Amino acid sequence: MKDWDDIAQGILKGQKRAIARGLTWIEQGRNDGKQLAQKLFPHAGNAQVIGITGAPGVGKSTLVNALTLQLRSQGLRVGILAVDPSSPFSGGAILGDRIRMQDSVMDAGVYMRSFASRGHLGGLSRATFGALTVLDAAGFDKILVETVGAGQSEVEIMQLAHTTMVVLAPGMGDDIQAIKAGILEIGQVFVVNKADRDGVDHTVRSIRSMLALASEHPAWMPPILKTVAEDGRGMKELADALENHWQHLTDKGLLERFRWGQTEHLIEQAMADIGDRLVGRARSGQEWSHWVAEVGTGTREAEHVAEELWRQEWRED
Amino acid sequence: MKDWDDIAQGILKGQKRAIARGLTWIEQGRNDGKQLAQKLFPHAGNAQVIGITGAPGVGKSTLVNALTLQLRSQGLRVGILAVDPSSPFSGGAILGDRIRMQDSVMDAGVYMRSFASRGHLGGLSRATFGALTVLDAAGFDKILVETVGAGQSEVEIMQLAHTTMVVLAPGMGDDIQAIKAGILEIGQVFVVNKADRDGVDHTVRSIRSMLALASEHPAWMPPILKTVAEDGRGMKELADALENHWQHLTDKGLLERFRWGQTEHLIEQAMADIGDRLVGRARSGQEWSHWVAEVGTGTREAEHVAEELWRQEWRED
Repeated sequence: MKDWDDIAQGILKGQKRAIARGLTWIEQGRNDGKQLAQKLFPHAGNAQVIGITGAPGVGKSTLVNALTLQLRSQGLRVGILAVDPSSPFSGGAILGDRIRMQDSVMDAGVYMRSFASRGHLGGLSRATFGALTVLDAAGFDKILVETVGAGQSEVEIMQLAHTTMVVLAPGMGDDIQAIKAGILEIGQVFVVNKADRDGVDHTVRSIRSMLALASEHPAWMPPILKTVAEDGRGMKELADALENHWQHLTDKGLLERFRWGQTEHLIEQAMADIGDRLVGRARSGQEWSHWVAEVGTGTREAEHVAEELWRQEWRED
Repeated sequence: MKDWDDIAQGILKGQKRAIARGLTWIEQGRNDGKQLAQKLFPHAGNAQVIGITGAPGVGKSTLVNALTLQLRSQGLRVGILAVDPSSPFSGGAILGDRIRMQDSVMDAGVYMRSFASRGHLGGLSRATFGALTVLDAAGFDKILVETVGAGQSEVEIMQLAHTTMVVLAPGMGDDIQAIKAGILEIGQVFVVNKADRDGVDHTVRSIRSMLALASEHPAWMPPILKTVAEDGRGMKELADALENHWQHLTDKGLLERFRWGQTEHLIEQAMADIGDRLVGRARSGQEWSHWVAEVGTGTREAEHVAEELWRQEWRED
């Protein structure tokens, strides 16, 4: 098997086999996956990461497909990551039917991958960050991140996107209420899909009035678009709206700030990794059970043990 | 204002004002809240933490109330924590109507508190762990942890419980499907509430067949109880079932293992705290922006910066 440096070179050349292997390493939370993401990070920062969120039934998959075809027609390379923040117990992705995605997947300028959660939530967010770094470094212009399910894990994933697109459909009034709590506030582009159905204008008005409540003088006023993803209607306008937001981020220097924040985050992760490594090593050491027993009874403070682990590491250097 | 050591003393005496203040510190993610939780940890480990989960509409609040009255009638002191893993953006708890809780709250042997999420998900789980430590150290015999909403954040919270109780109601077949992915596998006691309604036996059978699929020879076979929380029916049996599970954990040495795992977790947290503190300090230092720029361009690796932060800390000692 190739080592991670070879894989990194393959990814930088846009080789799909290398991309696939790198993403698997990251998905599995392996150490070489972490190293790979760190190695590739300086080569990333060119792609627009577009988060796509919305309740089940609004047609997200079809929309991703139609949008991909639109972006391809503009000559853009598209990476698609379908993140499944499912049960930590189920052990695998429970992504729905992706058959319609095949139109896109057949094309060499498109890479599509589903990505399942492993371990705890922070882990999913970190793995997704790593996966986006891989696709970015591989040279995709636009990366679409779609999540399955909703709730807080979804919000965390969407924070990794430059542009978050919230998808709704007519006649889902309750869902508009439901997303109010968090998703609405992170949406920069709103899409009312299935716009050939009754009630589309009502849905648009509902979104508009909620947006008006949310912010009085926003620097970016989220557009609300009507689409029929099934036959591609509205895709050109959607692509334009996404491009406008990208331009907005660039013009205001927000893109640079975003990248800066991600770099700081990478250092924080490296810090946490050292901590985890030291704990991992200590666990197999002689003193560990003694320390745990002492912390449990209050004879020693947890912080003292932590400091001792750092001291030992330093001495060993 | 009293310092955290005084608050700790008050909590150990079971003083409600001290408990309230300690929980607020922890909820806000304050440093003295973290210290408080560490200080109290050796005094905790006596209470049975009972997680209560289930879809909206199954009557969780009413059930918590009725169960509390039952436990009180047995002379047990009851702490109740209603955790709200809501949007990180909404900034506050959106807990439903808790008026019915007043029956319980009037009693001196009961302490009830709602607890909202702050910051990211790991933060909520950590704060909940801290809050449980406070209630445990304050001498409550049983601590009921109820979450609002579902999904992965709920699963994380439930991992802090000794016993997880999954609540369902008749005629919610779809919800049984929905919980299959994760919640079912962490349930140790199943409750079909509103058992005076049609379809109760069907719901019981559905749970039973899913449990049979989940595990062939479980060490603990989860009981399925029927309750009508509104009038208190089935509460005695429910309290017995919870007690049986507690006895099971004790007999098999699992309780000790649980406590051991929590103690290890405390050391890991202390480790992460040191890392966070060093990054926090570095951010206001002169070299930080230089380092971030270097990591962003790949001139320096994130891990090198992290190691440098540790080295500097050591030199300063």
